[in-house]
Amino acid sequence: MSTVLPPEDLENNPRVKAVFDDIRATRQTDFINNIWRYLAFDEDLLERTWGEVKAVMATPSDLDPLTKEMLYLAVSIVNNCNYCVHSHTAGAKAKGMTQAQHAEVLKIVALASKTNQLATALQVPTDPEFLLEE
Amino acid sequence: MSTVLPPEDLENNPRVKAVFDDIRATRQTDFINNIWRYLAFDEDLLERTWGEVKAVMATPSDLDPLTKEMLYLAVSIVNNCNYCVHSHTAGAKAKGMTQAQHAEVLKIVALASKTNQLATALQVPTDPEFLLEE
Amino acid sequence: MSTVLPPEDLENNPRVKAVFDDIRATRQTDFINNIWRYLAFDEDLLERTWGEVKAVMATPSDLDPLTKEMLYLAVSIVNNCNYCVHSHTAGAKAKGMTQAQHAEVLKIVALASKTNQLATALQVPTDPEFLLEE
Amino acid sequence: MSTVLPPEDLENNPRVKAVFDDIRATRQTDFINNIWRYLAFDEDLLERTWGEVKAVMATPSDLDPLTKEMLYLAVSIVNNCNYCVHSHTAGAKAKGMTQAQHAEVLKIVALASKTNQLATALQVPTDPEFLLEE
Amino acid sequence: MSTVLPPEDLENNPRVKAVFDDIRATRQTDFINNIWRYLAFDEDLLERTWGEVKAVMATPSDLDPLTKEMLYLAVSIVNNCNYCVHSHTAGAKAKGMTQAQHAEVLKIVALASKTNQLATALQVPTDPEFLLEE
Amino acid sequence: MSTVLPPEDLENNPRVKAVFDDIRATRQTDFINNIWRYLAFDEDLLERTWGEVKAVMATPSDLDPLTKEMLYLAVSIVNNCNYCVHSHTAGAKAKGMTQAQHAEVLKIVALASKTNQLATALQVPTDPEFLLEE
Repeated sequence: MSTVLPPEDLENNPRVKAVFDDIRATRQTDFINNIWRYLAFDEDLLERTWGEVKAVMATPSDLDPLTKEMLYLAVSIVNNCNYCVHSHTAGAKAKGMTQAQHAEVLKIVALASKTNQLATALQVPTDPEFLLEE
Repeated sequence: MSTVLPPEDLENNPRVKAVFDDIRATRQTDFINNIWRYLAFDEDLLERTWGEVKAVMATPSDLDPLTKEMLYLAVSIVNNCNYCVHSHTAGAKAKGMTQAQHAEVLKIVALASKTNQLATALQVPTDPEFLLEE
Repeated sequence: MSTVLPPEDLENNPRVKAVFDDIRATRQTDFINNIWRYLAFDEDLLERTWGEVKAVMATPSDLDPLTKEMLYLAVSIVNNCNYCVHSHTAGAKAKGMTQAQHAEVLKIVALASKTNQLATALQVPTDPEFLLEE
Repeated sequence: MSTVLPPEDLENNPRVKAVFDDIRATRQTDFINNIWRYLAFDEDLLERTWGEVKAVMATPSDLDPLTKEMLYLAVSIVNNCNYCVHSHTAGAKAKGMTQAQHAEVLKIVALASKTNQLATALQVPTDPEFLLEE
Repeated sequence: MSTVLPPEDLENNPRVKAVFDDIRATRQTDFINNIWRYLAFDEDLLERTWGEVKAVMATPSDLDPLTKEMLYLAVSIVNNCNYCVHSHTAGAKAKGMTQAQHAEVLKIVALASKTNQLATALQVPTDPEFLLEE
Repeated sequence: MSTVLPPEDLENNPRVKAVFDDIRATRQTDFINNIWRYLAFDEDLLERTWGEVKAVMATPSDLDPLTKEMLYLAVSIVNNCNYCVHSHTAGAKAKGMTQAQHAEVLKIVALASKTNQLATALQVPTDPEFLLEE
């Protein structure tokens, strides 16, 4: 079904093993989900992608982990990535997203997409009040 | 610049005035931003859109107001709605979004869009671990 | 503002002139809107694009001209093409779209975008009833 | 395959049953397609979504039912919602869309997407003739 | 799974057979991939689509065949067309795309999507240096 | 017009100055285009984004610089980023893209978007020939 095959014996490759070990240590789980196994077809792509995910999503910051996962989920829905909708719905639930919060995320995604289309259809001019003063 | 013109003397129309009054009361401000003035070209569209925005965004719920605004902003960026990017950046700042949080929202939108594309390009199969048991 | 400049003295080029003459004859107007002037930077692109627009949009068919313009407008909104939203709103009005019909097109675009996102977010399985029997 | 599971014994929930009864009465069929069963994971989302679909799509208006379904289908294609492409192709056929009309919808979606991209690539300026006079 | 069924005995239809014969001759293979079999539900759509694919993709031009296939693949990823991602990954490999080049295409698609979102989120003004002089 | 303002005296910030110096050295030009000036509102975002652009786009690799720029441009068109369409059209021209090649890129983007929509509309099943053998 995929357009590349993950290499066999993935973790015989020391660069791949180093990333997988870091994923396991960072997430405190043995589970390596498929996106990492398939990205391993190119070590550089694997290392850079994980480096960015770790820096943005798995490092304490000014947004709490659940909010970050819900933002990631919302973007994944709008970008229509089936794999990512599954993985980030699971991720947000693992971070504590309740069923009511899940429904709210969906309502906001749906409403925003609706008003986004209306503003585009009407070509609404930006209010001067929204512009920054230089 | 727009594809419809807002009616003159908008608030002479009692249906429009009722919506605008409710916006002012709900948001505790006199400012009515342009999207509402242009949506007023069709009263039904105005009433329904505001009704949904009020219910989803301006009613206490299981997500705090800032989180909701940041989700709305993230969706608006991905849907590429210039008006909405402006109005919801302003909205999130009004709800307390700091510059560091703004930068974080952008990093998540950018990272998610990137991994969304990679998962699509690779046609990564969904892990069985993500599937719900019926 | 554009990424190419329309050639000067456009209609000195006989291939461009032939297309423009056909646009004027087909639409029974002297007005050549900008997309055609900019596409003229490559005669082949101009000829092929007009040929397809003429065949699909300006030839009597199983859908009436107004329905076709409203479909074109709906697609242009979802694809977020500012130029096209303007030109096809004008085009649909020229074919008789009333203000009420305009509002209806917008309601359908907004509603469909909303339920499209919900179905993607939920990863709703296709009902067997929708599948064709081979 | 989905990210939520529809509750068992769905219609034991009176709010869900009320919506499903209204769907059956409005559409004059016993068939409840999956989107409604999955939306039932949150009664509020179910009620509001059906309310809007009923108002926009199942209420006599200035556009005929087939035109409305074809617009919904066109938007669903561009938004790339697999479920919605299936359900609204079936819906449009049920409203009388012929094979020739189906092919025409596809030709318009394809052509519009093509010219949308060209106008964006060229950053074509909007003709003054398309602008409304204030 | 599809929304139309390819006609049985496709090549009994002389218009379909003519297109398929031209595909086989142009590509020097007996393999007709599914998109052509399904497009055959409307001969006009089949003929026009193949005509354009042949002119743009299978005619010597100012870009080499591999570059053209990689561009087609990149667009298909961003448009999120699962079928097209598969067919054009295969197509680019058939034209000589190495695994390292495949990884590079993915890196560029991912990076461009990321910076595209950042520029939209920031509403970065176009530098005067990028504008053409009229 | 933008949603953040670039800090005044940008290069008084040593982290910003270091990135800008590297841009100038890498590109062998004094010109710093706006995206970098606006990204400087968050040093981390600036450093990481430039780091990735430099690694992917400004480092010798298995694709030549012009091909890479044309891929970037194609993605930017489909993602509908006005700023990026301008900057990467200029970038590709600076790398040697001729007018005929520019027209070809547009033809491929337009054609691919068209067939992407058709494959989605038809829900064409992936040919077994395209699937990899595990």
